[in-house]
Amino acid sequence: MKKINVGLLGLGTVGTGVVRIVENHQHDLTSQSGSPIEIVKILVQDKSKARNISVSPDLLTDNPWDVVENPEIDVLVEVMGGIELAKELILAGLERGKHIVTANKDLMALHGPEIMAKAAEKGCDVFYEAAVAGGIPIIRTLTDSFSSDRITKIMGIVNGTTNFILTKMSQEGADYAEVLKEAQALGYAEANPTSDVEGFDAARKMTILSTLGFRTEVALGDVAVKGIFQISKEDIAYGKRLGYEVKLLGIAEREDEHISISVQPTMVKKSHPLASVNGVFNAVYVHGEAVGETMFYGAGAGELPTATSIVADLVAVVRNLNLGIVGRRGFVSYNEKKLKSDEQIASKNFILLHVEDKAGVLAQITQVFAEYGVSLESVLQHPNAVNPFAEIIIITHDANKAAMNQVLEQFEAMDVVQSIKSVYRVEG
Amino acid sequence: MKKINVGLLGLGTVGTGVVRIVENHQHDLTSQSGSPIEIVKILVQDKSKARNISVSPDLLTDNPWDVVENPEIDVLVEVMGGIELAKELILAGLERGKHIVTANKDLMALHGPEIMAKAAEKGCDVFYEAAVAGGIPIIRTLTDSFSSDRITKIMGIVNGTTNFILTKMSQEGADYAEVLKEAQALGYAEANPTSDVEGFDAARKMTILSTLGFRTEVALGDVAVKGIFQISKEDIAYGKRLGYEVKLLGIAEREDEHISISVQPTMVKKSHPLASVNGVFNAVYVHGEAVGETMFYGAGAGELPTATSIVADLVAVVRNLNLGIVGRRGFVSYNEKKLKSDEQIASKNFILLHVEDKAGVLAQITQVFAEYGVSLESVLQHPNAVNPFAEIIIITHDANKAAMNQVLEQFEAMDVVQSIKSVYRVEG
Repeated sequence: MKKINVGLLGLGTVGTGVVRIVENHQHDLTSQSGSPIEIVKILVQDKSKARNISVSPDLLTDNPWDVVENPEIDVLVEVMGGIELAKELILAGLERGKHIVTANKDLMALHGPEIMAKAAEKGCDVFYEAAVAGGIPIIRTLTDSFSSDRITKIMGIVNGTTNFILTKMSQEGADYAEVLKEAQALGYAEANPTSDVEGFDAARKMTILSTLGFRTEVALGDVAVKGIFQISKEDIAYGKRLGYEVKLLGIAEREDEHISISVQPTMVKKSHPLASVNGVFNAVYVHGEAVGETMFYGAGAGELPTATSIVADLVAVVRNLNLGIVGRRGFVSYNEKKLKSDEQIASKNFILLHVEDKAGVLAQITQVFAEYGVSLESVLQHPNAVNPFAEIIIITHDANKAAMNQVLEQFEAMDVVQSIKSVYRVEG
Repeated sequence: MKKINVGLLGLGTVGTGVVRIVENHQHDLTSQSGSPIEIVKILVQDKSKARNISVSPDLLTDNPWDVVENPEIDVLVEVMGGIELAKELILAGLERGKHIVTANKDLMALHGPEIMAKAAEKGCDVFYEAAVAGGIPIIRTLTDSFSSDRITKIMGIVNGTTNFILTKMSQEGADYAEVLKEAQALGYAEANPTSDVEGFDAARKMTILSTLGFRTEVALGDVAVKGIFQISKEDIAYGKRLGYEVKLLGIAEREDEHISISVQPTMVKKSHPLASVNGVFNAVYVHGEAVGETMFYGAGAGELPTATSIVADLVAVVRNLNLGIVGRRGFVSYNEKKLKSDEQIASKNFILLHVEDKAGVLAQITQVFAEYGVSLESVLQHPNAVNPFAEIIIITHDANKAAMNQVLEQFEAMDVVQSIKSVYRVEG
């Protein structure tokens, strides 16, 4: 049994988890992969930094090329994050015939095709299960378990930070700004939370999931992104009253050969399995033509859950090495990409308007929907005791995005409409 | 690209689904597996039977050996069910070097090791994703995605019939007998429902899941089984009042090297993700040392969901054929089986007693628990206006099964205890 040598690029939270699992589960890993697995070199920024794991100082280096050019190393595990250097090291590793396991969603969303092409050229494996939804094995599920099906919809709660914030807002009736501060204090949100709260992190993950699910090369720019920072506690309260929870959903849909991908705050019906995914947990809902509704739930981040996916990928590489098939089971995206136009994207919508509180306004409002062929599921009007306006809450039936945009444009131009307070997609 | 020829054993509900998917998804299947896949022979009981799928009559045979001995056939898909004939045909197929995909949980739970041994001897693949939880890819998840982790607990709602019955009982406050009749009328329960309602079907599935999850050969006889037929609507109502739903759970646990497996009606806390799995849906909750809590949810049965798993297995066989690695990635159960004793099996418990309605009884009852070292989480006493007894509902803290049995024995012997109405394990 040939021992497999691993070079670890990065020893932050997730890297520490990888070291722990490889140490603690050695017997299982050897039994399952067919080879002992050893971490022989670790790239760190600061060799003298105190760490909450004991690692022999001989293993540490602050020179990436000590790892990447080391001829003893069979597999590189990249958990350093960032884009440019990580990409350079991974490509250099592949050039030298090293297999890659990475948790880097940013890198895979932006440069996935380039990396996979280099891997194919060099006959190497590249796995990245940990890049999306931490410990949830959603990538293997899409590529292997649903290989027989045509996936029509993927909806994911794939960002734990925003789900933590929205859960708190919902459970405590709290304001966005207030909860964000709390999340930052707890370490669930970063000092600069842009990537999470503006939806970019979720968009990168949806790029990867829709590429795999639809077997077509989706680019980050194909994802329409809207973040959570404009969500008010009133929106959440209204949603609750009507039986919805507000969640930041990544939504990828396919109809015939056309696809659309978005990230947006969505009103999710309480009976839908995604509505009760709370806190930092992640979940991915997958609908397939044949399999119907499925959902996969688990920890989306954290030292050990993410490391579980990385080490499972490592086991997969080692199995492939022992079978002599590395670099030969790459994912194939064989469908031409055809994006839906706004006319083809349909959904139910929730709209909250502030309007003048006088007779005939409701008729004017509903007339606009009728004009653009948008039919309504429900309309609620609340006079407001304090303010000189009425609130109208409308839930539409499925309406296409182009028509909805025209409706909203009309509202903007109407004197009786004081403001369009909020617009949400509705699911479930 | 060599075409792969498939022989289908059985053309019932699931077999029909397999034919549909192979026909409708041909382009996807070829793109993903690397070979066209064709069903060239189908075993049926009655060739002249009217079917809701159009199949060329040339494909049909009522002689199993036309399929099994056909030298053109590469893979047998067994969806005929039953044990003896299915086993004979699968072993005969393996003997002739044919790979096997089966949905037969009964067969795999009872004769899995024998079949896998024959497959190893002949260098053949045997896959059975569809045997447990229909369209949910739980088998591949346990063997591949969680290969890096030590799984400590698997809890499954793996029988749709009983979950349909319990959901109806809970939502409508209906009686078991009444709902069973309805389920039979709807085709969700069989005329002879024994295998489902007595928990045997779930036990077979748990045998498979615990074997894979704990990497040890679990036998059907290792599973302690209790069915749902004795559950009363009062039990369900009491559970609801205390925040629990009654579910038939398969529970497999590992602590150190010792395992226990059971199937039993369980009070599941409403906040637990399994509590809201309703109707004929299935879900499997997996806890791993590293990955923490995960859950996998989907359709547990039905023509197309089950066929999805079968055809995904078929794609896996074809990929392996094209990679030249069939028969070389078999599951290895490398752990010695050590079953927990009753002293080692611990859980919270729900107990409903009918006792004499007089002073001092509660003290006597709680004294018995104290005697055997069982501590209590809550005790509720309801005097009953109509009947000459009081109801006592006790929820214990974690207590071992041996102690609980002694407590219950004591109650049996006490005059003040009129009857032990119900005892449930509590989860969540």
